[in-house]
Amino acid sequence: MSHKIYIVGMGPGKEEMMTGEALCALERSDVIVGYTVYLDLLQERFREKELLSTPMRQEKERCILCFQEAEKGKQVALVCSGDAGIYGMASLMYEIGKDYPETELQVIAGITAASSGAAVLGAPVNHDFCVISLSDLLVPWEKIEKRLKAAADGGFVIVLYNPSSHKRKDYLQKACDILLETIEEERACGYVENIGRDGTKAETCTLKELRDRQVNMFTTVFIGNADSEIINGKLITKRGYDVNNRRLSK
Amino acid sequence: MSHKIYIVGMGPGKEEMMTGEALCALERSDVIVGYTVYLDLLQERFREKELLSTPMRQEKERCILCFQEAEKGKQVALVCSGDAGIYGMASLMYEIGKDYPETELQVIAGITAASSGAAVLGAPVNHDFCVISLSDLLVPWEKIEKRLKAAADGGFVIVLYNPSSHKRKDYLQKACDILLETIEEERACGYVENIGRDGTKAETCTLKELRDRQVNMFTTVFIGNADSEIINGKLITKRGYDVNNRRLSK
Repeated sequence: MSHKIYIVGMGPGKEEMMTGEALCALERSDVIVGYTVYLDLLQERFREKELLSTPMRQEKERCILCFQEAEKGKQVALVCSGDAGIYGMASLMYEIGKDYPETELQVIAGITAASSGAAVLGAPVNHDFCVISLSDLLVPWEKIEKRLKAAADGGFVIVLYNPSSHKRKDYLQKACDILLETIEEERACGYVENIGRDGTKAETCTLKELRDRQVNMFTTVFIGNADSEIINGKLITKRGYDVNNRRLSK
Repeated sequence: MSHKIYIVGMGPGKEEMMTGEALCALERSDVIVGYTVYLDLLQERFREKELLSTPMRQEKERCILCFQEAEKGKQVALVCSGDAGIYGMASLMYEIGKDYPETELQVIAGITAASSGAAVLGAPVNHDFCVISLSDLLVPWEKIEKRLKAAADGGFVIVLYNPSSHKRKDYLQKACDILLETIEEERACGYVENIGRDGTKAETCTLKELRDRQVNMFTTVFIGNADSEIINGKLITKRGYDVNNRRLSK
């Protein structure tokens, strides 16, 4: 018998920010597997489901758990915050899935923080952009540094995920120092904490100011490009339309 | 009196791929403004709403129309495909909004093609990535070329939006030639056409093969990084977990 596992991106947290397709996959499932923090967000709505978790860092075990439950004949959904394919569990599921050739995988996209955070700040990502995670758990820091330099050279809007954690308190500062080698101090930036959850907080600032801001693991950071500016407290990256004679066309 | 305009990302097309928040904003609106192709997708569900459009390229006029309708006291939603903040109308709305200080803007995030296309292909974007549009309507080609080079230098996964159009038939070829200066011919790539609509088509190939593929304006292109591979027809970018002894942990 063949099985199917849904790998579901649940977006930033609130149910309203999930897609209909994601909700439908969870409704259809018997078992929902995920990191405890995400399961807590789903608990009320999906109280009749079996909710299974493995501790933080045990991502491989969490994936294997999904395949094992599916082999029992249960419909399984694995949930990830944001998009399941962007720093989520989708690729690890495909890698481990080599051992479970009878199990089909279906990824269901979710709203990633580059989109949901941008919506809070205004329109900071309205042009070519890079997303870089500052977490060096799975990547050497030198590689992250190289990408920061390349992103600055390319004139991209830059979105930073995982800008800080208990063990990496100065990583945003280190990243800003690298960017400041290429980008001017006054570059328009912003950051959002707890997107789509209680206590959402958005701030705009310059790149120089950003360097010394305290952020945490629930913060997403946005560094504008040369066409970004702060308009009425919102971080806006202009796309290049000529808006000077905008009143004339009325 | 103050007004509010919703700027809504409708995702790739299917209603199931919209968020609850986006659907709710459209339900609450009297007037839905958008490019005709997107309005057509909404017509059936929102037939009781006033649907307004301006021709392609008249983005500025479309934004002004939103503010004018809002000033009449109507609740207005502007719809964009994908995410409203990623190559969407959000930043132009904020720019033009300088003339309408009484009108508040609220961006509602949607699933962008980097997420929805990735879900079809497997997990190609599962690490740091760049999104680059090959459209040179608003940007000089030299800038696009510079970004392609920087993205290749940084070792990013690269997602290309607008890889082709009637007037830009050879742009993907030009882009691949630039990438091939840095990236090996055998690099794992993929592309998806008509994501979330009728006739969704996904293909995987090497970068060398990609150069000569025919794509259109409804195609999103994914170029893997050095850790990407094609597993059972899916394009997967590995995150760096050690999966060699995966059976042992069972």
